[in-house]
Amino acid sequence: MMENQVLDVKHSPETCKASINAVRDTLYVLSGKWKLPLIVALSEGPQRFKEIQRALGDITPKILSKELKELELNEFVVRKVFPTTPVTVTYELTSYSKSLENVIEELKNWGIQHRQRISESMRKPIAGE
Amino acid sequence: MMENQVLDVKHSPETCKASINAVRDTLYVLSGKWKLPLIVALSEGPQRFKEIQRALGDITPKILSKELKELELNEFVVRKVFPTTPVTVTYELTSYSKSLENVIEELKNWGIQHRQRISESMRKPIAGE
Repeated sequence: MMENQVLDVKHSPETCKASINAVRDTLYVLSGKWKLPLIVALSEGPQRFKEIQRALGDITPKILSKELKELELNEFVVRKVFPTTPVTVTYELTSYSKSLENVIEELKNWGIQHRQRISESMRKPIAGE
Repeated sequence: MMENQVLDVKHSPETCKASINAVRDTLYVLSGKWKLPLIVALSEGPQRFKEIQRALGDITPKILSKELKELELNEFVVRKVFPTTPVTVTYELTSYSKSLENVIEELKNWGIQHRQRISESMRKPIAGE
């Protein structure tokens, strides 16, 4: 299943085109800077709007609402309404969002590594490529 | 090194926050719909501007130029000028862009899987979550 050589070997233009298209499909569905962080935030368990907003820190309610709707539409998130007074609304991940586990794990690992690289390069001059 | 449980277990809010920040760092550096597809395109080997444009299909020269500059700035791509007549300019990946191998692999796998899911769901009614 895995080729794990995206950058290691020279592909034929056809293989390369197929890889470009698959990556573009993913980026299309997960477009923008909020969808993946939102999914990570919800991995803590079902949460209310205000709790999600707090977890993300700097998202406006308008954008959060829009992003949650798009995630619902793509079946990554379910909005549940409980008949309390006043009503309680929570958002939780669907089983389909679990399919993003490896994607998120790699984005997280890379982010950690990139931040380390930046701190190191601030301590010494950057070596030329 | 790997926790691989981003979505499987409930985290403490602190762990969750750290994961959100790491993912956001990555998305920040690789922002937009073009940078990762561009890196995949260049994994074929050094290429000229026109060749990259052809590989991506629907990118305008203005955007391609802007994206390549940003990739250069972040040390993912090197621009090389050869003293031919007229001069030849190529773009190639740096060794640092290899660190994105796993990220790209997972985005590619997910895109392939997502496309399959869509084709399947077009053949039968969508099951509710």
